[in-house]
Amino acid sequence: MGLLVVGSLGLDTVITPFDKIEDALGGSATYISLAASYFSGPVNLVGVVGSDFPKEYMSMLENHSVDLEGLQIIEGGKTFRWTGKYHYDLNVRDTLVTDLNVFEKFDPVIPDKFKKSKYVCLGNIDPELQIKVLDQMENPQYIVCDTMNYWIEGKLDKLKELLKRVHVLIINDSEARLLAHEPNLIKASKKIREMGPETLIIKKGEHGAMLFTDDTIFSAPAYPLEMIYDPTGAGDSFAGGFIGYLFKTRDLSPNNLKCAVIYGSAMASFCVEQFSTKGLEELSYLTIQDRYREFLNLSRINETD
Amino acid sequence: MGLLVVGSLGLDTVITPFDKIEDALGGSATYISLAASYFSGPVNLVGVVGSDFPKEYMSMLENHSVDLEGLQIIEGGKTFRWTGKYHYDLNVRDTLVTDLNVFEKFDPVIPDKFKKSKYVCLGNIDPELQIKVLDQMENPQYIVCDTMNYWIEGKLDKLKELLKRVHVLIINDSEARLLAHEPNLIKASKKIREMGPETLIIKKGEHGAMLFTDDTIFSAPAYPLEMIYDPTGAGDSFAGGFIGYLFKTRDLSPNNLKCAVIYGSAMASFCVEQFSTKGLEELSYLTIQDRYREFLNLSRINETD
Repeated sequence: MGLLVVGSLGLDTVITPFDKIEDALGGSATYISLAASYFSGPVNLVGVVGSDFPKEYMSMLENHSVDLEGLQIIEGGKTFRWTGKYHYDLNVRDTLVTDLNVFEKFDPVIPDKFKKSKYVCLGNIDPELQIKVLDQMENPQYIVCDTMNYWIEGKLDKLKELLKRVHVLIINDSEARLLAHEPNLIKASKKIREMGPETLIIKKGEHGAMLFTDDTIFSAPAYPLEMIYDPTGAGDSFAGGFIGYLFKTRDLSPNNLKCAVIYGSAMASFCVEQFSTKGLEELSYLTIQDRYREFLNLSRINETD
Repeated sequence: MGLLVVGSLGLDTVITPFDKIEDALGGSATYISLAASYFSGPVNLVGVVGSDFPKEYMSMLENHSVDLEGLQIIEGGKTFRWTGKYHYDLNVRDTLVTDLNVFEKFDPVIPDKFKKSKYVCLGNIDPELQIKVLDQMENPQYIVCDTMNYWIEGKLDKLKELLKRVHVLIINDSEARLLAHEPNLIKASKKIREMGPETLIIKKGEHGAMLFTDDTIFSAPAYPLEMIYDPTGAGDSFAGGFIGYLFKTRDLSPNNLKCAVIYGSAMASFCVEQFSTKGLEELSYLTIQDRYREFLNLSRINETD
C-alpha cells in the first residue's frame, strides 16, 4: 500500500561554473524516490534503464528502501542521457544533449504488488505514459504529477486528459504561464485548477514556491543557500519531499499541505548543495527536520497590531 | 523632529498593456511621501519641480500631511518627465524618455525646520546629492536610502561614500548582484552590508522582498494580486511604508524591522493596483492593517514536529 513513483532514470553530464561531472545518476524518478525515501519507507519505483546502468546506482537506491521490482533493464540498451550547462547565475540552463535511448520506447508496466499503492507521484514524462500508469492502478487515492513545457506545447490534449485525474500538479512559474496562457500567476492558478487538480504548486526556483487550493494561497520562501553547486533535480526533490511527507502523515488538510511544501523545499535545498544526487544520499530525518525549522524561521514574525 | 524625504517629483507617461496615461504624478519622493504619510503624520519633503507642476498635485500631497516647504519651484522651468512602457507580463519595462529638466540642476536645500528630522529617506537620486542632504542634517538617527544601476555603474565611489553613512539600503535583486559583483544573493548581501548599511533589503518584484541584518534573514512574500495595473512606484511605496512604520513605532528591533518590511510590501501592493499614485491616495490605516494581516496569512503555518 506504498508510494509509487514513475519517471525517468538517467545518466547526466552537468556543467556548472564550478565543475563538470559525467554520467552521474539523474532522472526525475531517481530524485523523487530518494527524496521521498526519508519519509515513507519503501518507495515503489517504475522506470527503465539500459544494461549500461551502473550497479552501484541500483545498490544506492536499494539502500534507501527504493524497491526496484518495477525497474525495466533493457539488455543491450543504453540508458537515457542528458547533458546540461548552467550559466553564471545558475538560474538559466541550456540543454546540450538529450539521448532518449531506452526511454524512447518506455512502456511503464506496474508490477502487481505495486498496483495497490495509494499515493502516486508521476514524474515528468509523456502524459500518455502518465495516463497509462494510472490506468493500471487499482484505487489510487492521491496523485501528484509534474510536467514540462515540451508536453504543454506538444501534447496538450493528453495533458488535459491527465489533469482531470490528478490531485496535485507541480510545475514551475514559466510552465504555469504557458499552460494557462496568462502572465499573472494568480489568474493562471485559477485557470489551471479548473483543468482538474484541486491543488496547484508553482515552483519559482530561487524565489520559493506557492501553494494554491480552494481557499488557501501559501507562499513558501526559498532557502538562502550561499553555495548552490548543481540545481539539477531540485524540482523533483521538491516533489519527492512533498509527497513523501504527505504519505508519511496521511493528512491532506490545508495546513499539512503547507508543511509538505516546506518539506519539499527542504529536500530541494539539500539537493542543490552537491552535484547529482549526492546531496540526497546521506541525510537523516533529524537533519531534514532541522532544515524544515530553518525554513519556518525565514518567514517567522511576532505579530503586532 | 519628523521624517525627511528627499527625491524626485515628476510627470510620468506610462504605457501598459491595459492603458496609457500622460503627465501623471510620479517621482520617488512623491511615492515615498504618500506611502509614509499614512503612518507618520507630517512628512518633510525636499525636491524640485517646474512652474508647470499642477497645483492639484501639490494640494493632494498637502492633504496627505506632506509639508512642501522644502519643495523648490523653478519659475519658467519644466518638471522632470519620464516615459516608460511595460511589457505583457509587467516584469519588464523600457524607459522610452527621460527629460531631467529642472532636476538636472537640483541642489537640495533642507529648510531649517526640517534639519532636526531624526528619520531620513533618501530616494533614488545622484549619490552626491544624497550626501549633500546628509551634510545638512543636524543629528539624523536612522537613514534609509535607495539607489539604482545607473549610479552603481556611473558613481560607485560616491555611492560607497554614502553607504558608510546609511543604516538601511533598499535595492532590487539585479542591483544587489551588480553592486556586489556576485550572483548569489546571500553572498551579495554580506558584501553589501560590509560596505556600510547594517540592514539590507532586497526587493524582488513579484517574488517579495528579503531583509538582511546581523543575525536575521527574513523572507517576505509578494502579495498575490490578480490585477496589476501599473508597477511604477512600487519600490518607492515599499520604502515609504517601511520607514513610515518604523518612524511611527520608533522601534528598530529585528522583529519590528520584519513588520516594517511587511508594511512596505503592503504599500507597494496598493500602489500597483491603480495607475500613478491613485492607489495610495484614498487609503486608511485600517485598510493598510487589513492588508498587513493578509500578508502574514500568506506564509502562516501551524507548525508540526
